[in-house]
Amino acid sequence: MSRLWCGLTAEPCIKAGEPASDGIVRPMPRRCSDTDNDPDRCSLAVWSLESCHTDRSPATNDDGNQGKHRVEFGVVYSCVEDKMYSGRRGNGAYCNGQKLQISGQKDITKSMIITELGSNRDPDVMKIILSNMERLLCIPIHGIRAVGTAAVDMCLVATGGADAYYEMGIHCWDVAAASVIVTEAGGLVLDAKGGPFDMMSRRVIAASSKEIGERIAKELQIIPLERDDIKKE
Amino acid sequence: MSRLWCGLTAEPCIKAGEPASDGIVRPMPRRCSDTDNDPDRCSLAVWSLESCHTDRSPATNDDGNQGKHRVEFGVVYSCVEDKMYSGRRGNGAYCNGQKLQISGQKDITKSMIITELGSNRDPDVMKIILSNMERLLCIPIHGIRAVGTAAVDMCLVATGGADAYYEMGIHCWDVAAASVIVTEAGGLVLDAKGGPFDMMSRRVIAASSKEIGERIAKELQIIPLERDDIKKE
Repeated sequence: MSRLWCGLTAEPCIKAGEPASDGIVRPMPRRCSDTDNDPDRCSLAVWSLESCHTDRSPATNDDGNQGKHRVEFGVVYSCVEDKMYSGRRGNGAYCNGQKLQISGQKDITKSMIITELGSNRDPDVMKIILSNMERLLCIPIHGIRAVGTAAVDMCLVATGGADAYYEMGIHCWDVAAASVIVTEAGGLVLDAKGGPFDMMSRRVIAASSKEIGERIAKELQIIPLERDDIKKE
Repeated sequence: MSRLWCGLTAEPCIKAGEPASDGIVRPMPRRCSDTDNDPDRCSLAVWSLESCHTDRSPATNDDGNQGKHRVEFGVVYSCVEDKMYSGRRGNGAYCNGQKLQISGQKDITKSMIITELGSNRDPDVMKIILSNMERLLCIPIHGIRAVGTAAVDMCLVATGGADAYYEMGIHCWDVAAASVIVTEAGGLVLDAKGGPFDMMSRRVIAASSKEIGERIAKELQIIPLERDDIKKE
């Protein structure tokens, strides 16, 4: 049975400050929860990174990735549901062979939004997370869900099952694979501040429309976070 | 694909103030969301009610149901996952033929808790819902999820996939079937104030242990709600 909401998608093979410049980032299955001993309860994410900008200029490529990281191919496997999501740049997104299409919802008041409470128990961070939820609920929106895994959350936006997902505190390996699945299903991925998506920023909004994505960004108070590409001594 | 988190389990066949005294409450499939046109995206719940107290005395039966409603048998079907959960008093709880067993977790700091943000957009109610989440996160607990359907949420406690579920604002038809599934899997169902479960009170905690259930109750601020068995003119 299911800890469907596992917080991990794969053991990352890139380290902060040492992003892979090309090739497949090899996934290593990892248990979904510290309290869970069943090894089949994990999701995997595989992606490739292509160097499209050799410097750290803030140039933006055609699906909004800022900087030098461009996702070409992504796979997310939700083993609890036995659903394999995949997306390849220019070739669409699929789940178990079925083509994915976002909902196309543009009306924020009808939107079902996914986010997560995260694992940071700093009282100030929790206050921001909850006040962001409150501001969105007060618009009002249709509802908020917290399913548990960033990669699967984003894939649910790709299926049209949710209209948007946002989170701060995730890492590049949580969102890289799913970012191309969302865009290939017709959605968009942007920064929580509303600008282009920056894979190393630890912030993301995935949305079924520009209208919903930008409205969410307008409501969010930003949580200060250390980037994934900061070199540590 | 999935609006997995549908808010409905069935169209209720009992009306407020007219609870059925026995027999099966017939389920009527209903769409999961106002914005969702796919009729196969719903869950069903079936239960029977047995008159074990003819007056409205607060007597409590052996699984904590207060008053005259005793659930003998419950079925919850999660069509998105194709999972059929069932429980019969004294005969255990099952999912697709496999016996269910709660996690047995007693340590609140290791607990994965499910709740829902609900559909009430009254600012005062939303503040209570979010402050209850904050208080639990500050204990701290392992995590909070909001999967979307009271009946399935409770069944996840029965599977051991979550350690507890609580919500205020649900109706008797959301929780009746799953209450017997939780208790037959070894869990307990109680009131959000910590006393015996009252099916008409619109409040519930389902937990894998008395320790976790009572600790959650201790943290919850109660939302004032009109009972399901109040007769309306």
